[in-house]
Amino acid sequence: MISFESDYIEGVHEKILKRLIETNLEQLPGYGEDFYTKRAKEKIKEIISCPTADIYFLVGGTQTNAIVISSMLTMNQGVCSASTGHINVHEAGAIEHTGHKVLSLPEHFGKINPQELDNFLIDYFEDGNREHMVYPGMVYISYPTEFGTLYSLKELQHISNTCKKYKIPLYIDGARIGCGIIAGNISISQIAELCDVFYIGGTKMGAFCGEAVIFTKNNTPKYFKSIIKQQGALLAKGRLLGIQFDTLFEDNLFFELSKHAVNIANEIRKIFRIFNYRFYVDSPTNQIFIIMNNKEINKLKKFVKFDFWQKFDSENTIVRFASSWATPIENVYKLKEILEKL
Amino acid sequence: MISFESDYIEGVHEKILKRLIETNLEQLPGYGEDFYTKRAKEKIKEIISCPTADIYFLVGGTQTNAIVISSMLTMNQGVCSASTGHINVHEAGAIEHTGHKVLSLPEHFGKINPQELDNFLIDYFEDGNREHMVYPGMVYISYPTEFGTLYSLKELQHISNTCKKYKIPLYIDGARIGCGIIAGNISISQIAELCDVFYIGGTKMGAFCGEAVIFTKNNTPKYFKSIIKQQGALLAKGRLLGIQFDTLFEDNLFFELSKHAVNIANEIRKIFRIFNYRFYVDSPTNQIFIIMNNKEINKLKKFVKFDFWQKFDSENTIVRFASSWATPIENVYKLKEILEKL
Amino acid sequence: MISFESDYIEGVHEKILKRLIETNLEQLPGYGEDFYTKRAKEKIKEIISCPTADIYFLVGGTQTNAIVISSMLTMNQGVCSASTGHINVHEAGAIEHTGHKVLSLPEHFGKINPQELDNFLIDYFEDGNREHMVYPGMVYISYPTEFGTLYSLKELQHISNTCKKYKIPLYIDGARIGCGIIAGNISISQIAELCDVFYIGGTKMGAFCGEAVIFTKNNTPKYFKSIIKQQGALLAKGRLLGIQFDTLFEDNLFFELSKHAVNIANEIRKIFRIFNYRFYVDSPTNQIFIIMNNKEINKLKKFVKFDFWQKFDSENTIVRFASSWATPIENVYKLKEILEKL
Amino acid sequence: MISFESDYIEGVHEKILKRLIETNLEQLPGYGEDFYTKRAKEKIKEIISCPTADIYFLVGGTQTNAIVISSMLTMNQGVCSASTGHINVHEAGAIEHTGHKVLSLPEHFGKINPQELDNFLIDYFEDGNREHMVYPGMVYISYPTEFGTLYSLKELQHISNTCKKYKIPLYIDGARIGCGIIAGNISISQIAELCDVFYIGGTKMGAFCGEAVIFTKNNTPKYFKSIIKQQGALLAKGRLLGIQFDTLFEDNLFFELSKHAVNIANEIRKIFRIFNYRFYVDSPTNQIFIIMNNKEINKLKKFVKFDFWQKFDSENTIVRFASSWATPIENVYKLKEILEKL
Repeated sequence: MISFESDYIEGVHEKILKRLIETNLEQLPGYGEDFYTKRAKEKIKEIISCPTADIYFLVGGTQTNAIVISSMLTMNQGVCSASTGHINVHEAGAIEHTGHKVLSLPEHFGKINPQELDNFLIDYFEDGNREHMVYPGMVYISYPTEFGTLYSLKELQHISNTCKKYKIPLYIDGARIGCGIIAGNISISQIAELCDVFYIGGTKMGAFCGEAVIFTKNNTPKYFKSIIKQQGALLAKGRLLGIQFDTLFEDNLFFELSKHAVNIANEIRKIFRIFNYRFYVDSPTNQIFIIMNNKEINKLKKFVKFDFWQKFDSENTIVRFASSWATPIENVYKLKEILEKL
Repeated sequence: MISFESDYIEGVHEKILKRLIETNLEQLPGYGEDFYTKRAKEKIKEIISCPTADIYFLVGGTQTNAIVISSMLTMNQGVCSASTGHINVHEAGAIEHTGHKVLSLPEHFGKINPQELDNFLIDYFEDGNREHMVYPGMVYISYPTEFGTLYSLKELQHISNTCKKYKIPLYIDGARIGCGIIAGNISISQIAELCDVFYIGGTKMGAFCGEAVIFTKNNTPKYFKSIIKQQGALLAKGRLLGIQFDTLFEDNLFFELSKHAVNIANEIRKIFRIFNYRFYVDSPTNQIFIIMNNKEINKLKKFVKFDFWQKFDSENTIVRFASSWATPIENVYKLKEILEKL
Repeated sequence: MISFESDYIEGVHEKILKRLIETNLEQLPGYGEDFYTKRAKEKIKEIISCPTADIYFLVGGTQTNAIVISSMLTMNQGVCSASTGHINVHEAGAIEHTGHKVLSLPEHFGKINPQELDNFLIDYFEDGNREHMVYPGMVYISYPTEFGTLYSLKELQHISNTCKKYKIPLYIDGARIGCGIIAGNISISQIAELCDVFYIGGTKMGAFCGEAVIFTKNNTPKYFKSIIKQQGALLAKGRLLGIQFDTLFEDNLFFELSKHAVNIANEIRKIFRIFNYRFYVDSPTNQIFIIMNNKEINKLKKFVKFDFWQKFDSENTIVRFASSWATPIENVYKLKEILEKL
Repeated sequence: MISFESDYIEGVHEKILKRLIETNLEQLPGYGEDFYTKRAKEKIKEIISCPTADIYFLVGGTQTNAIVISSMLTMNQGVCSASTGHINVHEAGAIEHTGHKVLSLPEHFGKINPQELDNFLIDYFEDGNREHMVYPGMVYISYPTEFGTLYSLKELQHISNTCKKYKIPLYIDGARIGCGIIAGNISISQIAELCDVFYIGGTKMGAFCGEAVIFTKNNTPKYFKSIIKQQGALLAKGRLLGIQFDTLFEDNLFFELSKHAVNIANEIRKIFRIFNYRFYVDSPTNQIFIIMNNKEINKLKKFVKFDFWQKFDSENTIVRFASSWATPIENVYKLKEILEKL
């Protein structure tokens, strides 16, 4: 059975495997002090055109969000997020576990509206006493969003300026940033410049695990490594992360893989258009959201794996098809055949 | 330069690498729902002779401790630990970060004294009102301890009975349990029987990362997987952990590797004895603690890597030499040559 | 200048003062073990017709909410609340500080819609895997709500049944419950019966401070008093709370004071109706929400104190007038005169 | 029966009662914005000779400790305390509940040894990498200590200098500071100068409740009032605290009451000396610790209330007798008579 269930169903890119084999018996210091980790950081700094960036490799996305957010907020501050933001819905309360509120803003297919953010902050900061309320201490957006959508450069600049105005950091969740860069019109250097901290997702782009957290404004929280340890996220064999990122950012591999994922998704979108499926949202990245009749879902899932997203109405459901860096084009052809038969 | 700096300086056992390669492009469900993870659990249940055990794979030790302890305590309870316990000293406050106090007991080369534990709990539970104090809600020990020492079966039974008497769970940190089983006189089935929850450390015995948490008394906290997610510890590509443990527990590999580490350590101990070094503690596992003159340390560290542990007095320091599953016997010979020269 | 700013602008009812004086030099045990505290609990049990109730006196409302909610939830659970619920907006993140998420439901003038709650919980509990989401572990409502509105008996029964169905406790914030009982059609015994835990607010009804937390279903969290201590809420001189509640629940004083507050509010409402003011919501209790033109607000506030609530549109604001147990009827006459002049 | 059980068994000084009556029906703003609260702050600033001090009134001691400590530490820092410090033993884990570790130092009848503190911090800050350990981020001492003992000026200066050297704040718990100032050789202005933050305890010196937190170095944590709210400690009727402190610091009342308590304690000490009782510690303040035979305790407690402190040996127990601002001298005479009879 073919699967479009998620973008983390395969292992790791073969070049990474090769490097893990080559370096396997080298005796390296732990906790990210090894040569490969250091070299990976240098490569990333160059790619994002930010020589002063401060970079840490963590294991997973929820962990990364909890650590970055909790370490940058004062204890009574909260983080603004679209209501559908990963931190607000799909992290089992990881942010609240660190003591902070997620301040929910209206979502527009996963995005926050820059003007609505403005209004929220103006209302908060300029309109009387707010001592009994949670202070907005950070803005969190994801690029691409959880619905595969992208902010335009203009939108991102607007959000960035708003954050500067109120002196609160902008944090970009880049779990799928590779696809965002390929499909959108914002470069990774612009991302680095417009935000205060972001992460480059490795788990969903060819690594076993790993997210690269990047502070771009000389703004790393004090004792950050100790905070990583405190939250149980300091990998003893840091080499595992370092070697993976060192490989991903060699010879443009990371973006090549991202391009593959987006191309495959485009092919899938074509097929769904041929068969006149209804798209829930026009997403340009590697996630495709289809409004599908429940009966059809039951038939289709005998042949293809995909992800239930949410109820649409009593007869239809939003389902997600995801491509990955490893999805073979053959699977797209097979999907076409299956849809033809149904 | 040879290194005895820690037991996590090498990568991963070659059999694991092989299996990662073989399974790499299989499309597998995430979050530990894959075939290999399930099979690994079955193997462990058999090895520990506990068919009803409930098993979860986490990434690292500090993470594991924080999740197990916080999920088993009520909010006002604390966890008893030797003052030198990993959770009390070397986890950057990870337990307190979850809101719980570590109740420190006197340490005896890393161990708690069972009678002292008894007295502490009697005093707490049978002697008046303790509403203003933290309730002891769990006992944490490590096997082997942070000083490489081991409890005898009798000691462990005593501690286990005390915990049963006061109905508080006994949790065993098994970061280095492989070496403990090989060097000590307690089987892994006895460990499973005498405690309520323990973990088998993979990171320090041939895996890139991974600790197997095992609830042995039908006592898994409600919603445990959701709690793992909440603490940022649910690995998307759970296969990475599953495949590693599936391999480690095939053909006795885990214990073969442990035996190698202990054998190497025994050889190192012999050498230090030949040269009349002073041992800080008589540890039978893969960690060796030597009281070394500071001047000698400065000379030696030009040729060998080892770990500074703690000051002993103004002129001497306790240093640690660790062997691992991968330490070549040649390195022991080299160490001997180096010591001879000095 | 007269004030309708809030219902906690005056001190304490004179009968309480009298009792504080009478008992002042009695030597009484601390931490709520005194005679007056015990007697107050007995009186409350009788008034709510629940002889098995378990009662604790805390100092303030936010404190009470944080302690009750955090002690009744498991670590990965959240509490459902109307988006305008006090815990979601005006407690500076006190619930999140204890590690729990507030799961926001749509508000209808401060109330949640029972059917919407049903749908939310059905969706959550009966529709697939929710391990990555926060578990709804409690329903929080306020009676009256933050907008002075009241649930009907039918609505409350619906909510209560829904909670029973999913085995999650119903918690009622009774900061202003006195006014709710007087103005609504639900008795305090019915409140006690329909929920699992609620509190009777003293601060806003004649006491200096104090809220009586009442567990009505033999469901007090284990070690509750120790949890109170842990959250810094165990008053050393517990007598201060005990004596106040002992007095409030003697000779029906609490409800007499509540009646006064509601009567005064009714008079104020009449006056605003005479002058054709626009009510934001039809609230029957001691809070009155008026949509007022900003220019008029600026004039009026030279003569009367009242509370800015929230922006209505660019030219109008919602303002709140509150009566209290102590508001003299003369102040209502003065308000009328002032409005006549403007 | 007479009682020396604690220093919070009586109500409130009559002058405070009088002021509560006089101001009772004044309509005052809430949350500490009233006139009396402001005036009380001015009086305290003058008394401590620190015009730039920033002052907040909280309800109780444990609450105060949790709020001050958690708001001044970064998330991975802990607070140094004597092992017997109130925060380490008798606050039910309130500090850990906020996520921070209490770093326990040896106690000497309740005090830390300044040189031992030095050594601990030198070892921590100057001796290698400590990323896996909790950073000492504050020093907590109590004056008087939990054993009624006092630091000398020289000791306090030493501790203060050590804190300055490592740039960590010194926090003094002044739950019983009145007695400390009367019995010791350090003025309250010196206290204010030598520490970074301290509190003046009202609960144990004539108030129903209330502790005055004082930041003396322009170092109030950002958003402190909001943090107070978040931790459930912002009293709606702040007047209750303001009026009490306004009265306590008028005409030297606070120190007059403290003098009474110390004088009574001195009389009690004389009596115990007459009867050759064994003192556990030579404490000069209002707490007296006697090593008493268990049989004698059983006889004595039929006539006098006092506090069990801790087991001394199998036959003896340390018991505590406390005097208060309100203890009548007659009770001391009665104690003498009782002891004579036994």
